[in-house]
Formats: sequence, structure tokens, C-alpha cells
Amino acid sequence: MGSIVAENRKSMMLFSGRAFPELADEIGRHLGVAPTPTDAYGFANGELFVRYRESVRGSDAFVVQSMSAPINRWMMETLIMVDALKRGSAKRITVVLPFYPYARQDKKHRGREPISARLVADLLKTAGANRILTVDLHTAQIQGFFDGPVDHLFAMDVLAKYIEEKYAGRKIAVVAPDSGRVRVAERWTDRLGGLGEHPPLAFIHKTRDPLKPNEVVANKVVGDIKDRVCLIVDDMIDTGGTICSAADLLAEGGAADVIVAATHPIMSDPAMERLAKSPISEVVVMNTLPLDEDKRIDKMTVLSIAPLVARAIREVFDDGSVTTLFGGLS
Amino acid sequence: MGSIVAENRKSMMLFSGRAFPELADEIGRHLGVAPTPTDAYGFANGELFVRYRESVRGSDAFVVQSMSAPINRWMMETLIMVDALKRGSAKRITVVLPFYPYARQDKKHRGREPISARLVADLLKTAGANRILTVDLHTAQIQGFFDGPVDHLFAMDVLAKYIEEKYAGRKIAVVAPDSGRVRVAERWTDRLGGLGEHPPLAFIHKTRDPLKPNEVVANKVVGDIKDRVCLIVDDMIDTGGTICSAADLLAEGGAADVIVAATHPIMSDPAMERLAKSPISEVVVMNTLPLDEDKRIDKMTVLSIAPLVARAIREVFDDGSVTTLFGGLS
Amino acid sequence: MGSIVAENRKSMMLFSGRAFPELADEIGRHLGVAPTPTDAYGFANGELFVRYRESVRGSDAFVVQSMSAPINRWMMETLIMVDALKRGSAKRITVVLPFYPYARQDKKHRGREPISARLVADLLKTAGANRILTVDLHTAQIQGFFDGPVDHLFAMDVLAKYIEEKYAGRKIAVVAPDSGRVRVAERWTDRLGGLGEHPPLAFIHKTRDPLKPNEVVANKVVGDIKDRVCLIVDDMIDTGGTICSAADLLAEGGAADVIVAATHPIMSDPAMERLAKSPISEVVVMNTLPLDEDKRIDKMTVLSIAPLVARAIREVFDDGSVTTLFGGLS
Amino acid sequence: MGSIVAENRKSMMLFSGRAFPELADEIGRHLGVAPTPTDAYGFANGELFVRYRESVRGSDAFVVQSMSAPINRWMMETLIMVDALKRGSAKRITVVLPFYPYARQDKKHRGREPISARLVADLLKTAGANRILTVDLHTAQIQGFFDGPVDHLFAMDVLAKYIEEKYAGRKIAVVAPDSGRVRVAERWTDRLGGLGEHPPLAFIHKTRDPLKPNEVVANKVVGDIKDRVCLIVDDMIDTGGTICSAADLLAEGGAADVIVAATHPIMSDPAMERLAKSPISEVVVMNTLPLDEDKRIDKMTVLSIAPLVARAIREVFDDGSVTTLFGGLS
Amino acid sequence: MGSIVAENRKSMMLFSGRAFPELADEIGRHLGVAPTPTDAYGFANGELFVRYRESVRGSDAFVVQSMSAPINRWMMETLIMVDALKRGSAKRITVVLPFYPYARQDKKHRGREPISARLVADLLKTAGANRILTVDLHTAQIQGFFDGPVDHLFAMDVLAKYIEEKYAGRKIAVVAPDSGRVRVAERWTDRLGGLGEHPPLAFIHKTRDPLKPNEVVANKVVGDIKDRVCLIVDDMIDTGGTICSAADLLAEGGAADVIVAATHPIMSDPAMERLAKSPISEVVVMNTLPLDEDKRIDKMTVLSIAPLVARAIREVFDDGSVTTLFGGLS
Amino acid sequence: MGSIVAENRKSMMLFSGRAFPELADEIGRHLGVAPTPTDAYGFANGELFVRYRESVRGSDAFVVQSMSAPINRWMMETLIMVDALKRGSAKRITVVLPFYPYARQDKKHRGREPISARLVADLLKTAGANRILTVDLHTAQIQGFFDGPVDHLFAMDVLAKYIEEKYAGRKIAVVAPDSGRVRVAERWTDRLGGLGEHPPLAFIHKTRDPLKPNEVVANKVVGDIKDRVCLIVDDMIDTGGTICSAADLLAEGGAADVIVAATHPIMSDPAMERLAKSPISEVVVMNTLPLDEDKRIDKMTVLSIAPLVARAIREVFDDGSVTTLFGGLS
Repeated sequence: MGSIVAENRKSMMLFSGRAFPELADEIGRHLGVAPTPTDAYGFANGELFVRYRESVRGSDAFVVQSMSAPINRWMMETLIMVDALKRGSAKRITVVLPFYPYARQDKKHRGREPISARLVADLLKTAGANRILTVDLHTAQIQGFFDGPVDHLFAMDVLAKYIEEKYAGRKIAVVAPDSGRVRVAERWTDRLGGLGEHPPLAFIHKTRDPLKPNEVVANKVVGDIKDRVCLIVDDMIDTGGTICSAADLLAEGGAADVIVAATHPIMSDPAMERLAKSPISEVVVMNTLPLDEDKRIDKMTVLSIAPLVARAIREVFDDGSVTTLFGGLS
Repeated sequence: MGSIVAENRKSMMLFSGRAFPELADEIGRHLGVAPTPTDAYGFANGELFVRYRESVRGSDAFVVQSMSAPINRWMMETLIMVDALKRGSAKRITVVLPFYPYARQDKKHRGREPISARLVADLLKTAGANRILTVDLHTAQIQGFFDGPVDHLFAMDVLAKYIEEKYAGRKIAVVAPDSGRVRVAERWTDRLGGLGEHPPLAFIHKTRDPLKPNEVVANKVVGDIKDRVCLIVDDMIDTGGTICSAADLLAEGGAADVIVAATHPIMSDPAMERLAKSPISEVVVMNTLPLDEDKRIDKMTVLSIAPLVARAIREVFDDGSVTTLFGGLS
Repeated sequence: MGSIVAENRKSMMLFSGRAFPELADEIGRHLGVAPTPTDAYGFANGELFVRYRESVRGSDAFVVQSMSAPINRWMMETLIMVDALKRGSAKRITVVLPFYPYARQDKKHRGREPISARLVADLLKTAGANRILTVDLHTAQIQGFFDGPVDHLFAMDVLAKYIEEKYAGRKIAVVAPDSGRVRVAERWTDRLGGLGEHPPLAFIHKTRDPLKPNEVVANKVVGDIKDRVCLIVDDMIDTGGTICSAADLLAEGGAADVIVAATHPIMSDPAMERLAKSPISEVVVMNTLPLDEDKRIDKMTVLSIAPLVARAIREVFDDGSVTTLFGGLS
Repeated sequence: MGSIVAENRKSMMLFSGRAFPELADEIGRHLGVAPTPTDAYGFANGELFVRYRESVRGSDAFVVQSMSAPINRWMMETLIMVDALKRGSAKRITVVLPFYPYARQDKKHRGREPISARLVADLLKTAGANRILTVDLHTAQIQGFFDGPVDHLFAMDVLAKYIEEKYAGRKIAVVAPDSGRVRVAERWTDRLGGLGEHPPLAFIHKTRDPLKPNEVVANKVVGDIKDRVCLIVDDMIDTGGTICSAADLLAEGGAADVIVAATHPIMSDPAMERLAKSPISEVVVMNTLPLDEDKRIDKMTVLSIAPLVARAIREVFDDGSVTTLFGGLS
Repeated sequence: MGSIVAENRKSMMLFSGRAFPELADEIGRHLGVAPTPTDAYGFANGELFVRYRESVRGSDAFVVQSMSAPINRWMMETLIMVDALKRGSAKRITVVLPFYPYARQDKKHRGREPISARLVADLLKTAGANRILTVDLHTAQIQGFFDGPVDHLFAMDVLAKYIEEKYAGRKIAVVAPDSGRVRVAERWTDRLGGLGEHPPLAFIHKTRDPLKPNEVVANKVVGDIKDRVCLIVDDMIDTGGTICSAADLLAEGGAADVIVAATHPIMSDPAMERLAKSPISEVVVMNTLPLDEDKRIDKMTVLSIAPLVARAIREVFDDGSVTTLFGGLS
Repeated sequence: MGSIVAENRKSMMLFSGRAFPELADEIGRHLGVAPTPTDAYGFANGELFVRYRESVRGSDAFVVQSMSAPINRWMMETLIMVDALKRGSAKRITVVLPFYPYARQDKKHRGREPISARLVADLLKTAGANRILTVDLHTAQIQGFFDGPVDHLFAMDVLAKYIEEKYAGRKIAVVAPDSGRVRVAERWTDRLGGLGEHPPLAFIHKTRDPLKPNEVVANKVVGDIKDRVCLIVDDMIDTGGTICSAADLLAEGGAADVIVAATHPIMSDPAMERLAKSPISEVVVMNTLPLDEDKRIDKMTVLSIAPLVARAIREVFDDGSVTTLFGGLS
């Protein structure tokens, strides 16, 4: 008499930005739910508009956006999508970023710089995002930039499984393409050495002139790579410069073969040309970013992130444990 | 002995985004200060980077950005510039937006839409902006979207002065191109009637089919325009559709001439072609947005907003009254 | 063993401020729930006190307050009611404002003014309101003043249905009483023209002396009203000055009859006297505000907003679509 | 060349709400600055409007408002004044509240109550107040309700000086009118005993029936008051009920005389009648609230708070020490 | 098809800090749920680490921490536990503080002091706490320091029941050990007088030299205690100084016996020695804080707070009324 | 007449926590200002109290606290000091943390962990800190955890100058003690190679069993260290385990000598014993943390951070450029 009591059901809805709708569709197929029909377009001067065709009230909303070029356009679209969900009374909003934008600007390298990766986290929060779900952050500290839960998934397991099968029986060396990635490369040696001997670990030591801050004087391989299949591991391939110059050094240093495993295929010019010309024989990447035909090369293998993301979304919706599913790492 | 006491001077610094540096330069010339040298560029995947070459500590910083296409890129650049100022210890940050972006999405026209103009205000605040200085907002209520001081300048005075001189002695009618701009057009009749008789006021009445929300069935001129120089007033010219179809109606209705005064020349395709073909004889705009050669047409007159903005910045810095200077309207 | 699991039901509770309890009761009857018994009173010095007699823990709370005079008292009561709900662990708090207070101060008309409509939104948020449900905002941009969902209902449909039936067969003209309401009046012409010809649209053009800002020099009807039933549409009737002077002009201009449709009957002195004396033959309003006997006049027809508000509350509680129910406009 | 450097002066401006302008004027005379000319009025429906006639940019603004009846009106006026200062670019805003409103609702006495004194602090903060300056808070903990500096002044010194002079040579007993004021009364015994013997301390013990929470069964004096001038001390006189029933008990108990010292003279009905009829011979209060003629009685002495508030404002403006000036207590 | 709908169950989980795990265990037994297994330890330099061994996603989490020495360590542990819950996607976080830390610093006693009790509330909020559940706050105003719901439980009922049974038939006087606790003592007289005559109320009047702020010159009993069992009531026993000097005065004043009822047994040195030597015959406390062997004395009786806290947690989880259960006081 | 205008001077005040007052004194000597006299002590139950003996109004306050053991006590003391400054009207508060606490918990290593380094930043912000000044963060991303300016100083220059002089003419190899520090070690090779040949770079590769996450199976030196003086570089020495086992490996691998340069000497047990027994011949550290006698060993050299911190504070106060002074890195 004093109140109306009703059953409280929860409802998951999937939303897709326009950067890479195929990935959202694929995630949706794994989940068994299609992205919500949405009107989205740009006005003549570039201002974006978004409207959902179905009610989003009370929904547990997952907004999937792949931050490919034009990255600022998709960033603004994501913020606008979140704003429309918030004002449309969605109950909880999780932004799914297979590739976290501006991750490389995660600190001030010198004075008077922005920390854009923190800014991105704050902008999402301001628009109304309650949670973030992302894959292979450039540095894990970026989790701490967001004031709320971040589910951080790792593609290493998927990538490593492929490498192990394809290169079974070969002698591997894991190579970090620069000094900042040695820790991650070390994790790969543990993963690949799981059932037997650990592969050796090497990295490329870059020498700089301290008076000319960003000028590299010389590169050198540190570690044992002779006669081995050198697996260069990195979180992303942008213009491919670092990776290809590492590959050249490895080839000169006597590597039996050079292959690359990287999560995010940004593939900006001239990455395609560089990789094609390099001594690298195979490049394995995830589809966290769209790969148009002109960004693909013959030696590239693309694995799908969709099953992993879909399972994580399901666990988040069900209040299950993401940690348990994905090797205790998230 | 218990403290170090020093004189507390204040220092104004000007910063320019890359959308329309010529305007910032012009404002700077009026102020007597050049925009601070800044490294700004985009990475291969579109991520932007900004770094100031001089210390910004303690400065009263004014960031000038004209929100032209690609508008989302310049929006993100502005946010990143503000973040870098905040982290570089600027004392106060004023974002100068001669054209406020996303102003037309200032409400939910239907359910499940964003209110992007509010979102823009919140994003600027989150990045670190303390104040906004802008010109001729699409609706004045947008001032209230920002949680802090907004200095709102009006170009009407500059535009009206030009019209009065050029069309002295002609019989004018002021025309609102749609029902939402009648209030602003009324202000023009007051301004132009200042020293004598008020010109009549007309507007274009659009008839819609209520079952097909955005479909206009018919347009009609309401008000007295016969044998007069019809001055269409609007805040912006985007694709020019509304203005040119108004001009056609006015010409058909017996106007002696049709001219246009609008603050923001967005000039998206096919505005140039439409205006060129229309019965409009002159289009007067401000340079709140950059006008590349391909956006200019012969009948266009461009007046400069820089003196007005520069005077406002100076007053803000000096704690003077913006209200006094600009006709009691800001 | 590691956790206690329970069913999660949701429970709607209705709360009524003291400004217009009859409206809350009527809304409650439509919903099938009575307002929660509440102790509310003022101390001798005017400080207000509120205490709920039943537990509000976990409730989906709807606080109904009609912002009539003394409006500041009811504003503070609303804030205090929300605070008590927040501290009493209500799960979600929606403030239902059939009339949004301070809506006319939605921008700075001149410098050094407040933007009180934004302030009201912030005060409600600070006290603990999660959502707002309101009717016919003075300007739709006020939605954007609140940092959260706003359900904005329109009374036009209810009012128009009444007008259509009562004045079937008569030739109507829709009239905006000033230049700022032309856009809304245009919507009425679309609504009333739904099944046939659109009625013409007119408005009152006020001429001001630009040197004496608020002094109106002359009024003039713009548009075709001759021999028609002139329907003046407005969002509110406060002192009735604007509407009655419009009615006089319309009568002088040859109107067959003058009627008024307005949502909010504030009816401040001398509205009753003015309306009684004016050529207006009927005034149709909603009961969004209380109408004591001394605020009613013979020619006034009062329609109820309660069914619309009750349906909206129910949809909000059920996570249904308010947009669908109310013509796609909210 | 890269920046414009200017001297940075600071400027104090005084603003007065309409509750008690005489007090603001008096404070201004002590400071040597007049309250800033302000347009303030209420609309017909009670909505308030405020506009400053002079620029407030960069000012160190002090808003004086005495929270008398109608208290909710003055509360809203204060919030609106602060909003206008914030949007007008005042540099720092201090709200001067000689009487802090809603101070008695400083906790939940039972479940489902508001904590209105905290709400008031949050509302002021939201509107834009940076600091609060107030006098004799009902409980000192209210300082902690505001997220920022609170300067808390004490009137005891002014009141005590008057009592000491007037009642020099008489044997005093200090009496707390209820159990919650004993701590404050103890401070009075220390103050009055400063140069000799401490006066005894007594209080009124109220007995309640625990089954009927607010019903007092019996009152009793605890402590030694026989043949003494009983000084009842309290922070405010509202309806005078507590104080007058204490006075009756004291008279019955053999007091030589009964006098009252209280800071805030709210004087709600029937305080005047009660005090007039009571055995109290003198009531000493401060002018923290306006005292219209009908609130004054013959036995009332009114001392001015203005000198103390003015000195505090000056110290705040000069970054001096309020603590030093006012006995180390603020 | 457009969404995945699932049942929405809620799940309570209990978490225990390391200050007093036995109390959390006892609360858990009353609830029927064990504290969640947790890895918690300190690093060599004192930095703390916490990790939950089970998923906390979507849980209604209750974190129990008793703020005993080293109190700052347990404060930081609590904040870290809350942070881990927030980042682990707990749905709602209630911090259960049987003893609220820093409660005595609830105001600035003099200038340039912190208000640490407010700071504690803000720190908990910042870490991610949504609600607080606590027992017998030093001052009830502390409820208002937290921006959210506070469930405030009272131990008086448990303590009084014990006293009533044990001392049935004896003539009791209730004594406040200083002037600030008289109001609480008065509540005890109402409680103990519930079924018959109210016991008298007395307090210790401390005389200070106003020139030496914290120096007590003399103490005196005010009120009737002769030949009665004097029950000193207080919220906590820290070093026991105030209570034991009160007991001495009472004994000298002719008390038949002296007993103490206090909620929080901090029992810092030299409380044990002081109490042992004092004329107090029994000290009754709650186990809101851990009492190691060296903190217990023979005349001490310890009652359990666990049943009360467990019932409150259950009501909070079930959205029941805490007010109803606990005598209308919370 | 309408305002009081005064000169606006700024005043720097230094405040010292109790963890390492000698460092604050030393910084003060470099600045020419003594730490402000402060009453600070702990109550019997460990609650801390702080009060400043001089007015802090309007000051530019720098609070120096070295986060040594008991680290949680000093953390709370810092928060309380900041709260007292905020409430005492300090104008700007910079917390100077020569060693940033909880820096190693800068990400979730596995699920359901806190991110304590972010929590610390948020707690400082909540208490009232406007800025942070710190030295050699464990990871530079921690700058992004604070929502405001962070001045990040580097001790490398001071340490390297000492090493260069002492070991001039020796053949050096730089060694990272684990894979996560290779990037920092690379910076050392650039610094030491500034005027000639870059020293080689090596690191310790740890092999883990992926099924037992934290168990290291084997360590191996990767890189060229034979017959060289091996300089192990790290940001801190806690228990010394990682560094000493690296030293053993280096000695076994044929190093000519092993020396260590580390910024923060935490020196927890059993660091002293381990270092004493190790083949390390010299350990060079900064005095960012206090080093009691029992934490010093013969082979330890302590350099002072005070000159660097003092210069940075001075630049912050003067709005100079910290970037310029410290090699363009902050």
C-alpha cells in the first residue's frame, strides 16, 4: 500500500561506435546479442550526432569502440554515445576499448607536456562511463588513471598459443624491441617456457646523445639470439620503425628467423612497406583495430580478440570473476 | 624569518591551437603579445601532442582555438592544451572559443539523444579550464552549461555598424530565417532602429507534417518585406540551406534586395554554390572561423572579430568590466 | 558460505511536498500508491523540518513538489526532503517538478547576473537528486543544466486535444505573445494542422529603445489573424501582462475571438483582474501549480497533468520508454 | 615579449543581502567600504533576482546576510548572490552569516531525518562560496560541515564585558537552560572567574518519559543558585520557552535575580510575551539578527556584533590572524 | 534479441581488517557468513597490501575494522581494502567502524587545527565507501561529516539492561564526568527511569584559568550523589584520567559506590593502573575495540556489540528499517 | 569608495612533518626560511594532532614529509597537516614527498588488488593538496595519478656526478637488477657516456614457473659485464634482496667490482646485513629518507637531496621553470 514492489531484472545491451562495427558484431555474436540500432552521423562541419532507436533505460550498457584513425573523431563519438546513455537513464555504462587511445602519452617526458592517457580516462568518467574494459594497455599503470573499475585483458595467451603450435620444435629467443619492453618480453619467456626450458631473452639497447635528447646514436642487441627464431614482442605496431630496425639488427646478428607478435595493429604509413621489406617472416596481430585491405600484408596473421572480450563482458554482466577466466592476470 | 615574502605580479600568456593560428596572431597583435611558441603535431595514428617551449607557471593563460573542421581533432587538441597548462602550473586558464562547438545540440530534441553542448562544457572543465570566452552562442542558455564564468561577446554591433553605413538610406526589413531566430532578429530591429524608425520584422514559417517529424511541408514568409532590403540575420551559415531557401521566398515575395548578416561562416558544402546562385547580393560574416580560399565567394564581406576578443581578454586580465565595454550585454 | 544471496526486488515510493499535496495524491491514485506519511512543519523562525514515518531504505523514491508561492520555502523543503532520503538510504531519487522554478533566469541577460535555473539544478544534485522529471520547461536547454537524466514531458497534446474538440470547425490562428515563443507556436500549428490545413502563425513584435533596455516602445501584430479565433500559446501565465496586451492587439486587429492555452498557471496579481477584463474568452491551463479559489476566474478551464506524470513515473520505475509514450518528444 | 606582466592588486568588496541591510552598512562603516550597489527584487511568484551595478571581477567578495524570517527566502537570495559573483568572476567569495541557518538540525535525532545544517554548507559550496564567516554556531562541529575554511567568531567576550560591568559586585551563578548547553556555560564560568573566584555552575535537568520521546515530564535545577544573580546563557532565543521555564524554576529556587545572555535574538512568537512576563530582569543579545520594533521589549539590551565582524573581515582580507585577535578561539 | 535479460540477485559479503578479526568473526557467526578469505600483510617498510581470494564483483560489501592501535595503520588498511573493493567492482561498500577514529577532533578548538573527524569521513568517501555503520559517535554531529548514509547504533540499551539487572533495587545517580557529557547522561536517566522514578543527574564542573587554556584549576561535583550508586557514563575510556578523578570526587562526596558504563574501551596506559586503584567497583564496556589480556582488569565486564551490529548489517542488506529495530534512535 | 584595494604580496612558508625533520631543516637552510613552529603529537591511542603556532592565512605552503617507517602514521600526519592548512586558509598547498609512498602498488598485478599509489594521490587531493613535488618516482606514470601539477625531480644527475668523479678511468657497465628497470639503466648509459663511449648495458633475467606466479626459478645475467665495474642502478633499496642477488651473479660472472647507485634508502631488515656480506664495494644513496645509525653501513655514501628540492621549491614559488633547472626532465 505504501509502495509498489516489482521484480528487478537486469538487461545487457551492446552499443557499437562506427570505427570498427565488424568487431562489435563479432563480439555480439559470441554473446548472443546484436548491437542496439543507432542513428549516428556527422554534420557537414564534422559535429557528430548519435541517437539510439530503442529505449536504454535501466540497461547494463557496453559501448564498443575501436580507436582507429581518425582517432579524435571516434574519441568524441564515444563520449557523445556515453552522454546519450547517461541522459537516457542507462544503469551502468562500460566502455569497451580494445585499443586504449593516447596510451603512449602516459607521463610527462619533459616539462609542459600533457598526460593525455589520464585525460582520456577523466573525459570518459565525465561523460558518464562507470567502467572500462580494455586490452593490453601500453603500460599497466594506466588502469590507475581511471577512477573506477578497469578490466584489463591480455592477448598474450592467444598469441602464444598460436606461436607455440606454429613454431613447435624450433629454438626460440624472445626479443624486446627497446629497453622499455624488457619486462613484458620476460613474461613471454615464462609463458613459452611453461612446459620445458625457458627461451633466452634479448633486447635492443639504444644509445642516445644526452645533449640531443631524442636522437639515437646507435643500436645494439644485448642477449643471446644466434641461430634462433627471434620473436619480437610488442604491444603495438604503429609505423613499424622500432620493430623493423630491431629485425635488421637481429638478422645481422645471426638470427635463424625473425617473427613478430603484437597486440594492436595500428599500421600507420609506412609500416606496410617497412614490414614487407624487412627480414621478418611473420607478423601475428589481434583484430583490436580495423585492418583495411591496404593495411594487410601477406606475412600478416590476424587472430580475433572477440571471444576474449565477449567472455569478459559476460562475466562482468553476471558478476563473475574475470580474474579466474583469464589466468589470474586481470 | 618565518616566511619568504615576494611581490606577486601577474602575467598574461596567449596560446594558439592549430585550427586558425592567423586569428590568434591577430588577437595577439591587438594585445601586444605573441602566442607562446608551442610544439604541436599529430602522430601517425592521429593522436595529438602538444608541448610549450616556455614556462607557463603562474600564468594567466588564454587558449585560442577556432572550432573549424576537422572539429573533433581541434576539440581534442584544445583539451590536451588545457591539460598541459594545468599540469604545467598555469594559474588560471581561459579557453577562447570564437565559435562554440556542438552548440546546436543544446537539448534533447527527442529521447535518447546526447546534449553535446553541455558535454563540451564539462570536458573543458575536466581538462582544467577555469573560464570560457566565446562569441554569439547559438542559444544564450549555453552559458549555463559551464560551471564557471563565461564571457559572452556579441558581434551584432560590428555587423550592424557595417550594414548601417553600407545601406544608409535604404528601407530595411529584418528577417529571421526560421521561427527559432525571431527573438534575435527582434534585437536587430531595435539596434537598427536606434536613431529613427524601427524596421519591420519578418520570419519564415515552416510547416511540418507531425507524423513525419523532420519533413518540412511548406515555407511561408510572415511579415512585411515588400520592396525592402531584406536583411536575413543568423548566428551561423553552415550548408546555407535555410538561408538560401529564405532568400528565394523573399525574392518571390517582392523584396527589393536580400542581404545576410551572420557571425560564424562555417561554409560547409554546398554553401558556396547555394549562396552564389541565390538572390542574395551580399553576405557579411565575422572571421570567427577560418575561411580558406575555396570557402570565399565574391559577394562575401568578412569583418574581424579580433579587436573585440582582444579587448575582452585585456579586461579579463585587468579585472575590468566586460559588460561596460560591450554594451551591457555580456 | 562465502556470501548471503537474496532476491533483489525494487520498490517505488511516492513523497509529497506541502506546496500542492492534492496533485501528489492524484498522481498517487493513478499509480496505485499513496504518498508516504511524512512529518513536515516549519519552526517558529521559518526553518523547515521533514521526517518520513516509514523506512525508505532501498526505495525508488519520487518526490513531487509544485513550485508555487512561497517558492523559496518549497525549494528548500524539496532540498531537505531529498537530503533526508539520501541519508535514509533511498536507492534512487527522482524529483518531480511539474513547474521548474527559476526557469526564466536561464541565462545572463546582462553582466553580473546569476543563472538561477542552473543553480537550481546544481542544488538538487548536491542534495542528492539522481533524476528530474518535469513538464514544459521555459526553454528546453534547461535539461542540460542538470548533470543526469531529465524526463521532460509536454502538455501540448492534452491542451491541443481539448482545443480541437471545443473549437472544431472554427478558423484558428496560432499567436506567439512575444518573439521568443514563435518556435513553440510553430509546433502548435503543426500539431493543430495534423489532419488538414495548418493554421497561420503570428506573433507580437515588441519595439524597444536600445538606449533604455527594458522599455517597450510599441507592439505590433506580425502575421495573419483577421477573423480568426486567435489561440495565444505560452508556457506560463504569471502576471498576465504579456498575454493580455497581446489579446488587446489581436482584438484591435480584427480577431474573431481570443483564447489562451498555457501550461503553468502561476496567476500572480494582477493576472486575475487583467484576464477578466481582457477580450480573451477562454483560458486553458494545466494543474501543474495549485489554483486556490482566488486564482480562478470564470473563463478558466483547468486540465489535469496527473495522468501524464503518473504514466511517466511508472515507465521510469519499470525502465520503460518515456519517449514512446509521449510522442517521441521527451 | 612572450607575456604581459602587470601588478597584481587585491580588492575587497562588500555585498549585502536584503534581510538586514543595516548590519551590513554598519560593518561597512567599520571597514570603510560601502556595500556594492545591487539590484535585488522578487518577481510576482516569489522568484528572486539579483544584479550588481558594478564590476565584481577579481574582487575578494564578502556577502553579508542575516538569516532572519522569511529564512528560506534569504537562504535562496544568498545562493543566488553567490552564483552571480561566481559567474561575474569574483576571485574569492566569503559568505558572512552572523546567524547560521538550520544549525539546530545538525544531526539525525531519529532515523529518516535530514541533516539540514550540513545541507546548508553544501548548498553554499555548490553555489560558489569559498569560505564562511559566522558567529556562535549552535554546535562547533558545524565548522566541519563546510569543505573549506570557516572563521568562527565568539560573542562571549562582548557579552561578558557588559555583564561584568553592569553586575560588578553581585554574586553570580551561571545556568545552562538544558543539559546540552552545560559545556558552554562552563566556559562562561571560566571567563567570569578570570580575575577571582569562579561562579558556580547549574543547569536544568529535564526528565522525559522514554516511551513518549519528546514529552518532558519534569524539570529540576541541578546546582547551587540560591541568593545569586542567575545568568542564563544560551546561543539563541527563539520562542523563549526553554529560557523562561528555566527562569521560573530559578526564581522558585531562590535566585536573587535572573538575567539572560544570548547571542542570536530570533524572537519568534511568543518570545516577547513570555520574556515580558517572566521573572527575568534583563536580556542581553547581539544584533546578529534584525530586531524590529515589535521584537524588542523594555528589558532587552542589544550589543553590536559589527565591530567584531568587521575586524575579522579585515584580517581575512589582509591574511592576518583571526585567531590572535579573538582570543585564540577561532 | 536486442538485450540479454537476467535475474538480478544481490549478495552480501563480509570483509575483515586485521585490527580485531575476532569481532568480525563473531558478527559473521550472527549473520551466517564468514569473512571473505583475504591476503593482507605489510611490506618491510610498513606499506600494506590487501588482496581478496574470491571475486567481489557485484557484492554488497561490509568491511569491518576496529580502530585500535596502531590506529593509523588500520586506517590506511581500511582505505586500501575499500579501494580494492571499488576496483574489483563491488556494488556497494559499507564501512563498519565499531569505533570511529579521530572522533574527538570534531572541531577546531583553536585556530590552525585540523578537523580530523571530517577528514576521516572524506578519506573513506574518496577511497570508495558508500556508507558508514558505526557505534556511539563521540558527538552525533559526526554523522553529518560523511556525504552519504550513516547508520549510527547505540550501545546504551545493552549497557543499561545489564546495569538494571545487576543493580536492581539500588539507588542510582547518573554522573557525567565532564560538562560536555551531561546531555548523554540525561538520556541515561530517562532510560533508567523508564519504569519508575528517574535517578538524579550530576556532573563534574571543571574550573579553568582562562589565561592558561588547558589547565584545570579545580573540580567539583554538581548535583545530588550522596549515598547513591554513582553510575559514571561516557562514550570511551582512553587513559581513564577524567573518569578516575570523577570517581575520587564522588567517593569523597559520599557516594555509596561508583560504577562506570562506557562503550569504547581504548584502555591506553595508564588506564589499567588508574582504574585498578580507583574507588570504582565495576567497569562495564562493549567489545567495540580489542581487549588484550594486558588491557583487562578484574573489575571489568565486557559485553558484546556483535549481535547489534549483525542485526543492523542484515537490515541494511535487506532494506529493512534500522530505526525500528534499535529504538527509533538511528 | 566601492572597494578597498591593497597590495597583493605572496609569502612562502615551510612546514615539516615529524618523519625526518632534519631534511626539512636542511631544505629550509638552502631556502633561507625555517619550518613553521608546529605542535604535533600523538594521543595515547595513536591518533595524531597538529597545530601551527603562526598564522598560515594566504601562505604558499610547502609541507615536507619523508615517508619512512611507520609509514602509515606519517601518511596520516601529512593528510592532517594539509587539512589544517586548508582550514587555516593557506592559499596553495604543495606536498613535498622526497619518497612517494606505496609507489610499488601502481597497478593491479592480479585481480582484486588495490592501486594504492593512485589512492595516495587521491587522499592528498581530498585533504586539500594542490600540488605534489617528489623525487624519482618508482614509475613515472604515477605523475598521472594526481589531478594537478606534479614536479618530478631526478637524482640521477647528482648520483652520476659522484660516480663519474670517484670511478673516473674505470671501465663501467650499467646493470638493471631486473627486467623492469632496463629503461632507467639505459638512461644511465646515456648520461655516463655523455662525453665519450657509452658503457654497455646488462640486466638480470629472472625465470619464473608460470604455474607458480611469484616463484623465481633462476636468474641469469644478460649483457656484457666481464672485467668491468658493474654499476647496479635502482630507485630504492628496501630489503636489498634483488640488488644483492644481482651482485652475486655479477661477481660470479667476472665483474671487476660491483657498486650500487639508488635514490631511496629504505633499508629494511635485512638490507644492512645483506649488503655488508655482498660483493658490493660501495652503495651510493640520497637522503630522501632518514638513515638512523642502525641503517648505515661502512660502504654506504649518502648524498643530499636538499639542494635540489630547495631550488625546485624556490622556482615553484617564483613561477620559474623547474624544467630548465633540472635538465629538461621534470
